[in-house]
Amino acid sequence: MPKSILLIGAGRSTTHLIEYLCKQGLENDWNLTIADMDPELAVLKSVFENSKAVQLDINQPEKLDKLVEEHDLVVSMLPAHMHMPVARTCLNFNKHFVSASYLSKEMMDLDPEIKHKDLIFLNECGLDPGLDHISAMSIIDQLKARGCYIREFESFTGGLVAPENDDNAWKYKFTWNPRNVVLSGYGGAIKFMQEGEYKYIPYHQVFSRTEIIEIEQYGMFEGYANRDSLKYIKTYGLEDIKTMYRGTLRRPGFCKAWNAFVALGATDDSYTLENSENMTFREFINTFLAYHPTDSVELKLKYYLNIAQDDVEIWHKLESLDLFKPIKIGLKNATPAQILQHILERKWTMEPNEKDMIVMWHKFVYMENGQRKELHSSIINKGEDQQRTAMSQLVGLPLGMATKLILQDRVPQKGAIMPIYKEIYQPVLEELKTYNIRMIEKTMG
Amino acid sequence: MPKSILLIGAGRSTTHLIEYLCKQGLENDWNLTIADMDPELAVLKSVFENSKAVQLDINQPEKLDKLVEEHDLVVSMLPAHMHMPVARTCLNFNKHFVSASYLSKEMMDLDPEIKHKDLIFLNECGLDPGLDHISAMSIIDQLKARGCYIREFESFTGGLVAPENDDNAWKYKFTWNPRNVVLSGYGGAIKFMQEGEYKYIPYHQVFSRTEIIEIEQYGMFEGYANRDSLKYIKTYGLEDIKTMYRGTLRRPGFCKAWNAFVALGATDDSYTLENSENMTFREFINTFLAYHPTDSVELKLKYYLNIAQDDVEIWHKLESLDLFKPIKIGLKNATPAQILQHILERKWTMEPNEKDMIVMWHKFVYMENGQRKELHSSIINKGEDQQRTAMSQLVGLPLGMATKLILQDRVPQKGAIMPIYKEIYQPVLEELKTYNIRMIEKTMG
Repeated sequence: MPKSILLIGAGRSTTHLIEYLCKQGLENDWNLTIADMDPELAVLKSVFENSKAVQLDINQPEKLDKLVEEHDLVVSMLPAHMHMPVARTCLNFNKHFVSASYLSKEMMDLDPEIKHKDLIFLNECGLDPGLDHISAMSIIDQLKARGCYIREFESFTGGLVAPENDDNAWKYKFTWNPRNVVLSGYGGAIKFMQEGEYKYIPYHQVFSRTEIIEIEQYGMFEGYANRDSLKYIKTYGLEDIKTMYRGTLRRPGFCKAWNAFVALGATDDSYTLENSENMTFREFINTFLAYHPTDSVELKLKYYLNIAQDDVEIWHKLESLDLFKPIKIGLKNATPAQILQHILERKWTMEPNEKDMIVMWHKFVYMENGQRKELHSSIINKGEDQQRTAMSQLVGLPLGMATKLILQDRVPQKGAIMPIYKEIYQPVLEELKTYNIRMIEKTMG
Repeated sequence: MPKSILLIGAGRSTTHLIEYLCKQGLENDWNLTIADMDPELAVLKSVFENSKAVQLDINQPEKLDKLVEEHDLVVSMLPAHMHMPVARTCLNFNKHFVSASYLSKEMMDLDPEIKHKDLIFLNECGLDPGLDHISAMSIIDQLKARGCYIREFESFTGGLVAPENDDNAWKYKFTWNPRNVVLSGYGGAIKFMQEGEYKYIPYHQVFSRTEIIEIEQYGMFEGYANRDSLKYIKTYGLEDIKTMYRGTLRRPGFCKAWNAFVALGATDDSYTLENSENMTFREFINTFLAYHPTDSVELKLKYYLNIAQDDVEIWHKLESLDLFKPIKIGLKNATPAQILQHILERKWTMEPNEKDMIVMWHKFVYMENGQRKELHSSIINKGEDQQRTAMSQLVGLPLGMATKLILQDRVPQKGAIMPIYKEIYQPVLEELKTYNIRMIEKTMG
């Protein structure tokens, strides 16, 4: 009997997912319905013989009910905070649910009911979170099977611009949702474990506590810590681990300059600035600096943030954004974070032909037969252009492949789960190799 | 006909309020009911012939209803977040309401209904907020009446320890709710106006952007900015003002050392530390610092926070708190802010015979007949001991006096209001003089 998938949300990062699901559908006899608020966007993405487009506002419960009822499985590509009504509808109509977002507390609360109904609600199955779990767990399970004790785990992922296009001072451009990039780390303390000690960093310090990582052929990167690394100690079954650190990659020098914005308060998203519409970039920066009748914004900033006169690296980055120019912002009632995003988008937007690059890197330190060993594993992937990005591919393929596994009844786990099980990660990693996406491993010691 | 007042909450800072209301009650024929969760506390404070004590849990709506119905006016001395059920009950039974807390949005939402019922819900009528509005508005109205243009307003208040007892390195002790002191400024951006420019400071910078203030006979103080100074531009009717800055006073050097806690993240109240119960003070500090197998907590802290070797002032303050000693914290599931409060309370608690001191200071710059003039106004008040504190007196008297004015039908304004009206501030300031509490003014230029 043919099966049917409902995909809700056809925005960024769905190109490869839709392509994968439709091509697999032709082989496996299933079809795809692409639902979006914007009917034109849905139609635009529905180019396959086994796909169709519908308009859907998830605030119309009758329409959502009807659509969910007609399908076997729902893939939600909505923004993270919009999943729950969809998930509850899936539960009502006994349908599986798949998403790339973090497994939320609200979702976890549904776990007993999902299990009771023999359903699978698969979360964190995109890139980060997603492929990071998939690749890490494949190594963790192997090491454990060999009787190794895993002492340290560090993992970093970055959505970056490919080297051939990283031609600005920051060596960074927006390759996914700019708002998420501006707010990265914002809003709470950062937690991890280092050598058996719990460590906490306030948001305003996180970009000054970076780590340098070198990846063969791709050069140097710097990593800063993600919000909560501690919760994955249990998820990964690493209760005896001494170091657990998950982070985000940038090119070296990015974080020190970004820290200027954090120190100023320019990444704050909790209040709106008075008269932001008529303010200039220069006035925006000055709004965080003490008043002086004659001192320049430049000097006040350098003095306030303790930027040395000869620190040309950081200064060049800041100037490259036209921060000190009298360019009008033109955004009404905007928060500092929204204005900063606006300023950055003028300079950090990818051209249609430019390529993005995903870098994922894990480091394991483990004891095997009394010996300390170290294993580095990396996945690097470049996009083709702005239609076919590495981000879209590495979000969409794990999600699509896991969806296939569920439809083929190959996932025995039930409830609100993550892709940490062999039944998921092994076939996904195998199939990714056919797309030339593979883990490059290096063992030392 | 005798009138009756219901006071809810008999904790700190109510000694003078109860004494004032009862003494005035003997003259004016009214009586006071003192209600508290803790019946013993209520009985302890009810020592006057026209007072009585009752036990009240505000989560018992029937009991609250009955009590409110039996009285003419309710004074709420509950924590700020607990006022609303009391205020709503007052509205139901057509009773006036008085408190020393900030006028909240929820309270303001009731304004049309309060007005419709011809009631007075007086907020912000303690010390800060309270006496600051009362004293400032008396000057603002005078200057306006003389045709002056008020160009700048700065106002600082501090609850400090009297000079004869400020015998620790910080020259500071807890003279009111320690939790509020630890969380001062925490949780959002700071907003003010300087020379016509809106200025914003993120929380993590506020203690490094202080101002020095000298008050004759009392020496030097330093002030840091309160959360939102902008909202009082409209409240005070100063729409054309160029500088509007409200802040908090400490003794010089306090803020720079306090900033160490802010920079570490030790004032964070948003998460609990793993295993806080068995942690020592030293381990608490180390939890915010990078791991190192041999480097000391002291050196790591100095290096991280850029504390120079010869900066003995700040170091002496930190050491005086036993921060680096292996003393067990003993608090379960505690936030960093709760642990810091615990550490500080060992050293910053007032002895029963020690005296507190309130310092309030306003600075006005105004133009009169084309001339720039400056007016400084200060109120300084010392307590007698820990039973009869300056804090309790300066919170309780304005609150009590305004309550009297309402009961005597001398407040014509209705609705959710603040004590910014002549009908309130003038008699309050007059009566305060009989307690030897007066504004000392100094005009320059």
